[in-house]
Amino acid sequence: MQSQSRYPAPRITLLSDFGLQDEYVAVLKGVILGICPSAKIVDISHLVPPQDVAGASLLLSRAAPFFPEGTVHLAIVDPQVGSDRAILVIASQGHLFVGPDNGLFSFLFEKDTNFRIFRVNLALLEGPPASATFHGRDIMAPLAAKLAGGADPASLGTEISADLCRKLARSRPRRVGSTLHGEIIRVDTFGNLCSNLQQSDFTHGVPLAALTVILGDGRVVPLVRTYAEAGHRPVIALFDSNGFLEIACNLGNAAQQLALGPGAPLIVVENLSGTAEEIDTQRKI
Amino acid sequence: MQSQSRYPAPRITLLSDFGLQDEYVAVLKGVILGICPSAKIVDISHLVPPQDVAGASLLLSRAAPFFPEGTVHLAIVDPQVGSDRAILVIASQGHLFVGPDNGLFSFLFEKDTNFRIFRVNLALLEGPPASATFHGRDIMAPLAAKLAGGADPASLGTEISADLCRKLARSRPRRVGSTLHGEIIRVDTFGNLCSNLQQSDFTHGVPLAALTVILGDGRVVPLVRTYAEAGHRPVIALFDSNGFLEIACNLGNAAQQLALGPGAPLIVVENLSGTAEEIDTQRKI
Amino acid sequence: MQSQSRYPAPRITLLSDFGLQDEYVAVLKGVILGICPSAKIVDISHLVPPQDVAGASLLLSRAAPFFPEGTVHLAIVDPQVGSDRAILVIASQGHLFVGPDNGLFSFLFEKDTNFRIFRVNLALLEGPPASATFHGRDIMAPLAAKLAGGADPASLGTEISADLCRKLARSRPRRVGSTLHGEIIRVDTFGNLCSNLQQSDFTHGVPLAALTVILGDGRVVPLVRTYAEAGHRPVIALFDSNGFLEIACNLGNAAQQLALGPGAPLIVVENLSGTAEEIDTQRKI
Repeated sequence: MQSQSRYPAPRITLLSDFGLQDEYVAVLKGVILGICPSAKIVDISHLVPPQDVAGASLLLSRAAPFFPEGTVHLAIVDPQVGSDRAILVIASQGHLFVGPDNGLFSFLFEKDTNFRIFRVNLALLEGPPASATFHGRDIMAPLAAKLAGGADPASLGTEISADLCRKLARSRPRRVGSTLHGEIIRVDTFGNLCSNLQQSDFTHGVPLAALTVILGDGRVVPLVRTYAEAGHRPVIALFDSNGFLEIACNLGNAAQQLALGPGAPLIVVENLSGTAEEIDTQRKI
Repeated sequence: MQSQSRYPAPRITLLSDFGLQDEYVAVLKGVILGICPSAKIVDISHLVPPQDVAGASLLLSRAAPFFPEGTVHLAIVDPQVGSDRAILVIASQGHLFVGPDNGLFSFLFEKDTNFRIFRVNLALLEGPPASATFHGRDIMAPLAAKLAGGADPASLGTEISADLCRKLARSRPRRVGSTLHGEIIRVDTFGNLCSNLQQSDFTHGVPLAALTVILGDGRVVPLVRTYAEAGHRPVIALFDSNGFLEIACNLGNAAQQLALGPGAPLIVVENLSGTAEEIDTQRKI
Repeated sequence: MQSQSRYPAPRITLLSDFGLQDEYVAVLKGVILGICPSAKIVDISHLVPPQDVAGASLLLSRAAPFFPEGTVHLAIVDPQVGSDRAILVIASQGHLFVGPDNGLFSFLFEKDTNFRIFRVNLALLEGPPASATFHGRDIMAPLAAKLAGGADPASLGTEISADLCRKLARSRPRRVGSTLHGEIIRVDTFGNLCSNLQQSDFTHGVPLAALTVILGDGRVVPLVRTYAEAGHRPVIALFDSNGFLEIACNLGNAAQQLALGPGAPLIVVENLSGTAEEIDTQRKI
């Protein structure tokens, strides 16, 4: 009855594209609770668009760091299920991640921290042979449950280097002189347009007043600190709670009002102190 | 390891307009579990329409009373995040409520019971400075977790009077002689049209047969006790499980079939015993 | 404080057509936690279409078996609430099921296993009288919580035979010679078209290569083992993780692409070794 975990209850988060109308998510939970009855299971989301590995990866990168150490994160967006794509267990900063090797976890490899990656050895797993179409149920949920119960990742597979893992091609911000070029990478529930430009991309210590945010159509958007500061301005830019620049409409839906979505470009000019003509020139960079 | 709570696991309910597709809800849960690892977290709903404080307040007023004493209710619909709106902790009938002071909790002040309201003193909070856009994550989830772990609300802020709290303007039933005037205040998943007329608004002991329910277009709707009593009548009225009068279509969607929604008027006439002409007169009140 | 259950936490699954925007699901959970504070509650789904008893039954039959023994499954899709339809507690294979007697549980009676069915005696229940419209809250959630806490089903009602329970009329596969006739019974989140033809309906040991899957329009669909085997074929058939034949588009939505849904017919011919003319004849069966 004693869990090997040092927490009151082992924690497992779930992320998938399974939706909320079918039995798939419940089946994962049933399997987990059969192996690790005391597991505390937390849904990150199951509304990832079908097969959207990049969207799931972004979501996981934003949710996982807020869980306490010792959490197991099970992420299943798995278009290659049934192929020979590997299944990974990754230990990073006190968290464990389980899922297919399709780029879902590439955000973990971008940080300069220690991590250990294990390619699961299916021959070591107990139980009946896996189905061809639901490795979440047959392989990955049992793995997550065993890890939550205290299993050593090294006992489940072979340690490999990140070079052997699939990584997602990500659009990265590009700097040209004092101008940063980025793009919108997602639209959230509120219609906020989240970009790939982070506070850390800007010159250290540059004040907000020195940044000019310009959308792809040349529209300059005022940069504020909070939604409440928007006042009557219909469109604003601000740094979100993760430090990413976003375009928002206070009490409105920016994606709908601006008819913009993922892929839309935006630029930010630092220390814009010139004349209107110089600004026009910069917009054309 | 011993929780200060007298329950097997501290309970926290969550209510927000965060939706189910982004990381926001999971981040709240991660933060809570980092502070109060044994918390049992129950979602009320995260599908409140963006910034719909009134809808969230109605939902909370209908869900919270069914939880056992000792439950902490964290409600985050917070259009003024980043402004100087206060954050409240309210103790009422053995429950604790945490959320912004924007009217979300005004239903608590309408009952003639004892409650205590604390305006949170942000200077007393530990941890890094709060972000400008996600006080749910940075302030309110930590508060709820501390309260669930046994913290004394009085240690977190200053007690204030309900006079100092924001309240929502609510449409209230109006009585004119023997006629009650109300309106539809929400449409539920089944398309049932819920009104603001409660059983307690009617003359004590008045039998169902003495009530005539009339929609805004003059249509008289038969009042029954259960959906099953509808028989082949296309539209019925009944008192819902909270004692509110609702308009429903048995096995159908009343909101769609009648093309009605929030704000639609309805009247109920008590002891209607007159002639058809007198009824017509009353309908015009 | 000691639960009578032999599990670390009593488990209750929930299935309903209550949706995720109203308070109904939270109210069930609040009531359960008031009676059985240590209950671990797992949602199967609350997005069953309103009053879709057959859809809920299918979902429950696919989710419940993956939970460990000792789980209580509370299923509430209850169009006859308030009528005299019975409420059942069923013990089957170490699981307990609670819900209205409207066919929800008829899948349990189709297996040749031992089960015990109890018709709940409402007169034996404690607490205030039930509302007319929310027996989930007033009767069934309390029952599930008591069962999770260790109550004996036999103490709650009268044992009855399955003959007395409502059963759903289900479309069953039909065999004509070497041809099996089935139909699509649901569309899942991915747009996969799930049929009522199971692996066990086919001649034991028949290899995949000996099966020809033909849609209602005469289109022959290649049968593969995994989505990944689809290659560039736009439409495939495969046995899903429960052993049911499904029609899918790899990385696409078959329901949309084929404009098919529940009720669409399909046939599978075994050992199809004849000439094209013979195949044509079989297609017309």
